[in-house]
Amino acid sequence: MGDYAFRELAIVGVGLLGGSLGLACKESKLCEKIVGIGRSQEHLDDALAVGAVDTVTTDLVKGVSRADLIVLCTPVRHIVSIIPQVMRAAKHGAIVTDVGSTKGSITAAGEAVTPRRGGRFVGSHPMAGSEHSGVRHARPNLFAGSTCFVTKTPRTDLAAFARICRFWQELDSRVVIVRPDRHDRLVALISHLPHLLAVALVRAVDASGEDRNLIRGIIGNGFRDTTRIAHGHPALWRDIFSENRSEIGRVAELLRNALDDLMAGMEAPEERLEPLLEQASQYRGFLDHR
Amino acid sequence: MGDYAFRELAIVGVGLLGGSLGLACKESKLCEKIVGIGRSQEHLDDALAVGAVDTVTTDLVKGVSRADLIVLCTPVRHIVSIIPQVMRAAKHGAIVTDVGSTKGSITAAGEAVTPRRGGRFVGSHPMAGSEHSGVRHARPNLFAGSTCFVTKTPRTDLAAFARICRFWQELDSRVVIVRPDRHDRLVALISHLPHLLAVALVRAVDASGEDRNLIRGIIGNGFRDTTRIAHGHPALWRDIFSENRSEIGRVAELLRNALDDLMAGMEAPEERLEPLLEQASQYRGFLDHR
Repeated sequence: MGDYAFRELAIVGVGLLGGSLGLACKESKLCEKIVGIGRSQEHLDDALAVGAVDTVTTDLVKGVSRADLIVLCTPVRHIVSIIPQVMRAAKHGAIVTDVGSTKGSITAAGEAVTPRRGGRFVGSHPMAGSEHSGVRHARPNLFAGSTCFVTKTPRTDLAAFARICRFWQELDSRVVIVRPDRHDRLVALISHLPHLLAVALVRAVDASGEDRNLIRGIIGNGFRDTTRIAHGHPALWRDIFSENRSEIGRVAELLRNALDDLMAGMEAPEERLEPLLEQASQYRGFLDHR
Repeated sequence: MGDYAFRELAIVGVGLLGGSLGLACKESKLCEKIVGIGRSQEHLDDALAVGAVDTVTTDLVKGVSRADLIVLCTPVRHIVSIIPQVMRAAKHGAIVTDVGSTKGSITAAGEAVTPRRGGRFVGSHPMAGSEHSGVRHARPNLFAGSTCFVTKTPRTDLAAFARICRFWQELDSRVVIVRPDRHDRLVALISHLPHLLAVALVRAVDASGEDRNLIRGIIGNGFRDTTRIAHGHPALWRDIFSENRSEIGRVAELLRNALDDLMAGMEAPEERLEPLLEQASQYRGFLDHR
C-alpha cells in the first residue's frame, strides 16, 4: 500500500460528490489510482477531462473488482439496488462505503451480504453538496470543514470503520459517529426538512398565481437564501425524500405545530408571538457561534 | 431648495434602515440637512457618531416641524400610532413617507389626516435590511439594487408621489408602484412567509429536543441559508406579522397545501414526487435569471 491509505479507489457515480471525492483524493494523495464507474460514457469522459479519475468503465463488476476502497456516489435508491452486486464483486479485504443522504436502508443492504469473501461495508454521509450537480461543478475542497456521518452498528467491522473515519478526516471532514436510524432522524431535521420547506415555499409562490416576472423582480435576499436549495437535483431528492419519508413525516409534524403556534400567536403579538420570535432568534444566533 | 431634492430631511427612528437612509442621502447629496429623531438619546448619539444624521432630538413634533421630507423608520405599529401627530406637525407642503413592511394600515392612517395644512403622505417599503439591527450596522448602499414599493391610491397626491419615486430611484432602488392591499398580499408571499418558515424551522429543531451543541456541530450551509433570517429583530417581526396576519394566513395555507402534496408524493416517488420537485427546481432557477 506504500504511503497511500488505499492503493486503488473505485468511485461509482462520478457526479458532483464522486468527482469532488476523486479530486480531493488526488490532491491529498490518499489513493494511487482512481477508477470512475458510471452508466454514461459522456459523463465518464467529463470526469476524465476534469481530472477527477484516472481510468473509467461502464462495467460495474469489473470496475470495482480490484479496488481497495469502493465509494458509492449514486442516488440513494440506486445505491441500495447495486450494493449486493458490489459487495460480492469486491475483492477480499476491500472496504465499501457510500455518500448517500440516508443510512437506514443502505446500511441494512450493505450488511446483509455476508462478508466472508467480499467487501466490508461502513456507511458514510458527508454533509456536502450544492444546488449544482454534475462533475463539472466538482471541486477538491467540497468536503473540507463539513460534517461527515459514519455509521456504526453491532455488525460493523471495527478495522474497516477506523479506516473510513480516518479517510474522511484526511479530507478535513469532522467525523460524527452514529447509528443508521439515529442518522436518519437527525438529517430529517437539519437537512431534509429545510429542503422540503424550500421546495414547498417555491411551490406556494407558484400556486399563488402571481406573475413569475413580477415575483422575480421583487424578491430580495431573504427569499433567495431561504429557497436556494430548492434548485437542487430533483431525482436525487426524490430518492432521499422517499427513502426517509417516515422520519420526514415526523419532523414535518413538528414544523406544522411550530407554524400553528406562530399563527395563533399573531392574535396576541406581545404576550404570545414575541416570546416565540425571541426564542427562535436566540437559538439561531447560538447556531452561528462555534 | 438649490441642488437638493429636499432641503431638510427628518428621519424618525434611526436604526438600521433609518441610519442607512441618512448615510445614503448624505453620500448622494440628496438633502442639505438631516435631523434624527428617536426616543433613546443613546441611540441618537450612535447615529451622530456614525454620521447618519447632522442633528438629533427626542422631540418628535419639533424634530419634524421644519422638514421638507419626513421618513418614518420605526416598527410598523409605531408608525401607525405616530402618523396622525406627524402629519399635523409637518409644515405645509412637506411630504411624509415611511419604510414599513406593511402598507395597508399605514397608508390608511397617513391618508386619514386631511392634508389641508400639514404633510402629504405617500407610503414606501424598501425591500432592504439584514438579520442585524441598529444604526451601528447601517451602510449607505443598503438600498442599492433592491426593490422599493411605493403606494398609490385614489387619494395620493401625484406631485408628492412623483418626488418619492424619484427619491428612491436616486438611491438606486427599483421602484415598484402598488396599491397598499396588493403590496401586503405580495410581501406576505415573498417576505413574510419565508421569514415565518425560517422561524418555524428553528422552533421545530428546538422542539425536537435534540442537543443544541450536537445540532450546531452538524448543520450545513443549507440549514444556515434557510434559517438565517430567523435571527431578525423579534419586535420588528412581531409588528409585521400581527399587522399582516390575514394575508399571511392566506399564503400559509398555500404553503400547507404544498407541504401536503409533497408528503403525499413521497408514496409515489417517480410518478408524483419527482414532477413536483422538477417544477420547483425550474421555477427557482428562473428566479435567479435576470
